[in-house]
Amino acid sequence: MTKIIIINGPNINLIGQREPEIYGSLSFDEYFSQLHEMFPDVGLEHFQSNVEGEIINKLHEVGFTYDGIILNAGGYTHTSVAIGDAVKSIKTPVVEVHMSNILAREDFRSRSMISGGVKGVISGFGLDSYRLAVFSLIIA
Amino acid sequence: MTKIIIINGPNINLIGQREPEIYGSLSFDEYFSQLHEMFPDVGLEHFQSNVEGEIINKLHEVGFTYDGIILNAGGYTHTSVAIGDAVKSIKTPVVEVHMSNILAREDFRSRSMISGGVKGVISGFGLDSYRLAVFSLIIA
Amino acid sequence: MTKIIIINGPNINLIGQREPEIYGSLSFDEYFSQLHEMFPDVGLEHFQSNVEGEIINKLHEVGFTYDGIILNAGGYTHTSVAIGDAVKSIKTPVVEVHMSNILAREDFRSRSMISGGVKGVISGFGLDSYRLAVFSLIIA
Amino acid sequence: MTKIIIINGPNINLIGQREPEIYGSLSFDEYFSQLHEMFPDVGLEHFQSNVEGEIINKLHEVGFTYDGIILNAGGYTHTSVAIGDAVKSIKTPVVEVHMSNILAREDFRSRSMISGGVKGVISGFGLDSYRLAVFSLIIA
Amino acid sequence: MTKIIIINGPNINLIGQREPEIYGSLSFDEYFSQLHEMFPDVGLEHFQSNVEGEIINKLHEVGFTYDGIILNAGGYTHTSVAIGDAVKSIKTPVVEVHMSNILAREDFRSRSMISGGVKGVISGFGLDSYRLAVFSLIIA
Amino acid sequence: MTKIIIINGPNINLIGQREPEIYGSLSFDEYFSQLHEMFPDVGLEHFQSNVEGEIINKLHEVGFTYDGIILNAGGYTHTSVAIGDAVKSIKTPVVEVHMSNILAREDFRSRSMISGGVKGVISGFGLDSYRLAVFSLIIA
Amino acid sequence: MTKIIIINGPNINLIGQREPEIYGSLSFDEYFSQLHEMFPDVGLEHFQSNVEGEIINKLHEVGFTYDGIILNAGGYTHTSVAIGDAVKSIKTPVVEVHMSNILAREDFRSRSMISGGVKGVISGFGLDSYRLAVFSLIIA
Amino acid sequence: MTKIIIINGPNINLIGQREPEIYGSLSFDEYFSQLHEMFPDVGLEHFQSNVEGEIINKLHEVGFTYDGIILNAGGYTHTSVAIGDAVKSIKTPVVEVHMSNILAREDFRSRSMISGGVKGVISGFGLDSYRLAVFSLIIA
Amino acid sequence: MTKIIIINGPNINLIGQREPEIYGSLSFDEYFSQLHEMFPDVGLEHFQSNVEGEIINKLHEVGFTYDGIILNAGGYTHTSVAIGDAVKSIKTPVVEVHMSNILAREDFRSRSMISGGVKGVISGFGLDSYRLAVFSLIIA
Amino acid sequence: MTKIIIINGPNINLIGQREPEIYGSLSFDEYFSQLHEMFPDVGLEHFQSNVEGEIINKLHEVGFTYDGIILNAGGYTHTSVAIGDAVKSIKTPVVEVHMSNILAREDFRSRSMISGGVKGVISGFGLDSYRLAVFSLIIA
Amino acid sequence: MTKIIIINGPNINLIGQREPEIYGSLSFDEYFSQLHEMFPDVGLEHFQSNVEGEIINKLHEVGFTYDGIILNAGGYTHTSVAIGDAVKSIKTPVVEVHMSNILAREDFRSRSMISGGVKGVISGFGLDSYRLAVFSLIIA
Amino acid sequence: MTKIIIINGPNINLIGQREPEIYGSLSFDEYFSQLHEMFPDVGLEHFQSNVEGEIINKLHEVGFTYDGIILNAGGYTHTSVAIGDAVKSIKTPVVEVHMSNILAREDFRSRSMISGGVKGVISGFGLDSYRLAVFSLIIA
Repeated sequence: MTKIIIINGPNINLIGQREPEIYGSLSFDEYFSQLHEMFPDVGLEHFQSNVEGEIINKLHEVGFTYDGIILNAGGYTHTSVAIGDAVKSIKTPVVEVHMSNILAREDFRSRSMISGGVKGVISGFGLDSYRLAVFSLIIA
Repeated sequence: MTKIIIINGPNINLIGQREPEIYGSLSFDEYFSQLHEMFPDVGLEHFQSNVEGEIINKLHEVGFTYDGIILNAGGYTHTSVAIGDAVKSIKTPVVEVHMSNILAREDFRSRSMISGGVKGVISGFGLDSYRLAVFSLIIA
Repeated sequence: MTKIIIINGPNINLIGQREPEIYGSLSFDEYFSQLHEMFPDVGLEHFQSNVEGEIINKLHEVGFTYDGIILNAGGYTHTSVAIGDAVKSIKTPVVEVHMSNILAREDFRSRSMISGGVKGVISGFGLDSYRLAVFSLIIA
Repeated sequence: MTKIIIINGPNINLIGQREPEIYGSLSFDEYFSQLHEMFPDVGLEHFQSNVEGEIINKLHEVGFTYDGIILNAGGYTHTSVAIGDAVKSIKTPVVEVHMSNILAREDFRSRSMISGGVKGVISGFGLDSYRLAVFSLIIA
Repeated sequence: MTKIIIINGPNINLIGQREPEIYGSLSFDEYFSQLHEMFPDVGLEHFQSNVEGEIINKLHEVGFTYDGIILNAGGYTHTSVAIGDAVKSIKTPVVEVHMSNILAREDFRSRSMISGGVKGVISGFGLDSYRLAVFSLIIA
Repeated sequence: MTKIIIINGPNINLIGQREPEIYGSLSFDEYFSQLHEMFPDVGLEHFQSNVEGEIINKLHEVGFTYDGIILNAGGYTHTSVAIGDAVKSIKTPVVEVHMSNILAREDFRSRSMISGGVKGVISGFGLDSYRLAVFSLIIA
Repeated sequence: MTKIIIINGPNINLIGQREPEIYGSLSFDEYFSQLHEMFPDVGLEHFQSNVEGEIINKLHEVGFTYDGIILNAGGYTHTSVAIGDAVKSIKTPVVEVHMSNILAREDFRSRSMISGGVKGVISGFGLDSYRLAVFSLIIA
Repeated sequence: MTKIIIINGPNINLIGQREPEIYGSLSFDEYFSQLHEMFPDVGLEHFQSNVEGEIINKLHEVGFTYDGIILNAGGYTHTSVAIGDAVKSIKTPVVEVHMSNILAREDFRSRSMISGGVKGVISGFGLDSYRLAVFSLIIA
Repeated sequence: MTKIIIINGPNINLIGQREPEIYGSLSFDEYFSQLHEMFPDVGLEHFQSNVEGEIINKLHEVGFTYDGIILNAGGYTHTSVAIGDAVKSIKTPVVEVHMSNILAREDFRSRSMISGGVKGVISGFGLDSYRLAVFSLIIA
Repeated sequence: MTKIIIINGPNINLIGQREPEIYGSLSFDEYFSQLHEMFPDVGLEHFQSNVEGEIINKLHEVGFTYDGIILNAGGYTHTSVAIGDAVKSIKTPVVEVHMSNILAREDFRSRSMISGGVKGVISGFGLDSYRLAVFSLIIA
Repeated sequence: MTKIIIINGPNINLIGQREPEIYGSLSFDEYFSQLHEMFPDVGLEHFQSNVEGEIINKLHEVGFTYDGIILNAGGYTHTSVAIGDAVKSIKTPVVEVHMSNILAREDFRSRSMISGGVKGVISGFGLDSYRLAVFSLIIA
Repeated sequence: MTKIIIINGPNINLIGQREPEIYGSLSFDEYFSQLHEMFPDVGLEHFQSNVEGEIINKLHEVGFTYDGIILNAGGYTHTSVAIGDAVKSIKTPVVEVHMSNILAREDFRSRSMISGGVKGVISGFGLDSYRLAVFSLIIA
């Protein structure tokens, strides 16, 4: 069974709770249940942390045995050389995901320290960015 | 029937012919046939031009009646304010697509003049970037 | 009879159709008819193209015999070294025109590659920017 | 009767006196008399100061009752956040005017701290820039 | 009796009159009366000028004898090396004050030429920024 | 009872211990006791961590129920997009605080990634910056 | 017989007509006749277009069968990622040519988007730059 | 008799009063008396203002009849396009003077907006910079 | 007995496991055993963490009693103002160490936020960089 | 007889010895013999130095009497204002030559401090760049 | 007897020979004779070299025993960290001299790597810059 | 016997003579004698020059036969593309050495033009940086 993990970075645990008129009122956990139903044949896991180093720890832990990693590093996307290094150090392919279209926001969000090591980037489709990412890993 | 057009910019007509060890030996036309089979219920069209203004003309032509536009503007992605303006002027949602991971290449390729007006961006999945883009428009 | 041509660049053909609450519902053709009535003694012409090179072709064609050129190069204003060179290569005086106040918009719009060769710049007066430009060429 | 004031900034009082082969030998006062004759139905006033703060004082004084302000802030155009703030604080529409084509001169002159709050910009037509500015306020 | 002077720079005289939905309808003079009542034991004075040099003159005049200066230099904050030099030349401690949160506005407002010589900075609390500044000088 | 929490970032736990000739020999805990006495009617709490993600966790935990947050993010102020995002995601007003005058130090300290979402900024008053911050939240 | 094509970009069709005191009064067609006589054993062709995309089309057309391409992309040299990509996509060696010394002109002309893929660059020798380029392709 | 005026800008009136261990305890007025004795055959005058515009007024007033101007624009040196324009507009030669070595201080002091129009620059010799400047005008 | 601690930052725990053709197949633990044998008279300790704040915690813990700290902050080297502050806050001398030659890699790696407070920097000697660092602390 | 000198800068004396798979195994002296045979009617000389100032001395020595100078300044090309000044000070025309295509290499190599004063630039043709340069001087 | 040496850098040996309409037809040697007559009581010497290192050697040789050094480093002024270090390493005061007004020329000439260590700077007075420099050293 | 040469650049010959309170009163020659005693089995040589080109000459001379080069290029470190090229052209491994911690000094010293080609960098340990460098070459 294909094993894929979604790793979410800082503040993404607040989805559904903050600014529902923009992000919708669906929490990530509720959406994650829907994802399970959409991809019944995939072993999907979810991990969230606000701590940069714990995200690196998790990447090390799964990065040599899983089939795919979907990474939304949140604010760390734009500042973390260390996560970027971790992505390059592991073997499992990583798909970078953003709910909003990061290239259409503030200037400092148009630079990703992570993209250099990933397989591909999907951004701007809201929660469906995750769905497209799972799909991209299955058809690869 | 959902109508979606793929608009390809400069040099993409050479896919399959140049550097087959990187891009594969599949031409875009052959891939386009496969796309038709994957999405039999979608009215898929294809347009390619090396001329910046003709891409704008096409965006104007389809941008108020089609259901979706998949745009790979090639090298114009990084320089064309005019295509960026065209994308903002029309009503049909546009998905920006790149075969390679543009954020992992030369510096001047990490700036997109088009992303500001699009629904989302998919880059790095080779020809499958188009498949993911069609999928993203259907599930929206 | 004084011969003046208005050369409009990319996306300006959509005026009147897009965002009427901002730009008004008047199309450029309708406005052009009004201009004719305002300046009955001037031989006014109009040319529009979304193709950068066709704008250059037109500048070459009229640039040694007409009395004035009013140029709204749209998005090419900020990127086209080639149109800037064309403006410098011809003899007819060129007035650069913008409907919106380009210096009050995004950063990349505050740089004009064309201004170096023009007689003057008029920006921010909506469609009346054209009227002021015709006026400026007559009183010169 | 329409009330319009021309506010001129530093060094403009020397027009006609310095470099007559470039700017002509007409002083601004002489030109102002001609403007009166061109627009007999407009209540035209003129104010000049080399002091940044006095220009702000004048903008405050006239900025809630006059029908139009024509502002040539001279060298302050490129450095004065304070004049830019004043223009935004008042209600009367302001037209920014430059005799020379500022975008075709030194680099530091291509940035205007004032343009963000004005109705429009007219530059490069010599003293006729003022005439076009009056005209633009009347037809608005 | 502690002597403290509030020195306000350009455009602050318009507070209460412009954009009352943002800044409230209280003029600075009315607020200054309230400040007097809040701090009955402090000798509070107020000076306002739109002229950069007059602000420097005032700093020289009070800067060796008063107990504290509260300086809101308005737009000059971001451009005036001369006011910054004046602040460094005098002996009375200066507290820099801004009603809005200057670091959350346009880029050019995030640089202060004055902060290098002040005791502290308070910004973002509206008119209460002044109250906090008086308080900071008393408890020092 | 008004509930306010002070969140201190990296290295602030060393206050009182390092360079006492500059920062004084008062530890933050001793100062915190004094603050309690100054504001007996306020429910004051204190949290310190050197870990970026734990600061985000704490902001999430208190950010929807407390009346005010006083945040001194130390070195993270200048680098953490993630803390900046957290501040924007919560509802409790945040006051940014610095003991030293950050705008008068090294260049990289003059950029705050956090200021964009806070109510106000107080910097340069040593430990009294905290007292002024509590005061600012009470009078709001 | 060696087949070499000269591809000229925008505004070069005006050579001989504009500023003859600088560029001489020789048109490119006249010079091209002389080139034929200098290299009787070479199959020399000439193509000129002001349209960026047509230059790309021509590069695709000749780029797999000709023995050499001499490219003077004019103003597109400094802005066209798309022509730069085309040069890299084809197999025929390309020599970049400029009549003027581009490194001694305006700053924006010192950056070439095309040089990355060419065999060599020759600039500053007027029309003789073409002669040197033909010569460089023959002796290779 | 040779007429030379020294024009001093902001904060220079405090010389002798502030930081006497650095600048010495001599006021500018006392030094000016000494200058008179050193150059008994020169008609020396002195003008000081903290107001940018008054400096411009003075430059206009003396700039067509005096034999030399010695200008120490203080903090305005680095920000005033308007004074720079004034220096270029007048006929009397101007020598720019600084007491400290401005190129060895903060970065923003190494840019002079005035130098473009002056005859020469003398900086770093303390009050003797003025003496050298007078000398330079006499021997010219 | 001299007490020296090696503090390793993110991703360094993967040494020996990733890219053995470059970094060799020796793990850091194995190398650490060799170091013990080389310096039998030194009390050597080792600490590794992927969490920025835990590195700061450790620096605080050992920074007032140990004789030397060898710090390889990995990716945090280039981004962490907070670790840089911690290094400056403690008393034990710190030697900065890098296995690769950071100045010969990507641009963003040539800036160290930590170097400002360290005794010295050793980079480019692979695992021997640690040996040289221990040696440098002993001979000091 | 036409007198032309080739002046080679630092490291070019190693040609043929270093990286023969790239530069070939021909030394410059051997190539220089071939050049003599190709141009029997030209008085060709050769000078090489690794010392910046000796290159300047040589330029002064030959720069008023020779018919042409071919200058490959090696690494000094990108840093030497002094050689650039020397080129501008002499009368003999200088052709700048590079064996590799400098615009396709590291960023710091795309800026030439010398090009501003030369007749033309030839780069990228290996040792044949010298042959083309001689040719360009003969046909001028 | 006061001992002062003038050290001239690259290309200054050509003065009088190049562009006499700008620099005059006086050679530096002729001017140096005049200087001797103007200052009969000063032991004046002169040294010129186009070699950066020889200038450093000379600075070392005289920098601990002479009374003054007048340094015109020519083009090295803007690039030589090594000469700047030499100036800081010696004890004799150095006056930096330029014949032209370097701040009014090309951008790269407005940065001096030497000014940081000198006593003062004199630029723009032609050969008289040297006379003023001698004078400044005598009156010090 | 292992042959290692130390190549010192400009101003390093003054060590021991200048600022003894910082660098100590030991001259480099005295230190070099101590180095000989520390490494009796190594053939150590020393070369110093203030001339950029002589350093290049020396690198060429020893760079194919010696076992190691220790290079302290002094001020040329930050500007010399030519020395950087020389380091890359030779075969002997080079260790870059600095007595002070260059990354903790002025900004222009944090860029090394040499590091790209060296084996490793050691900086900040005073004269012991040389000892560590010899050690690093022996254990390699």
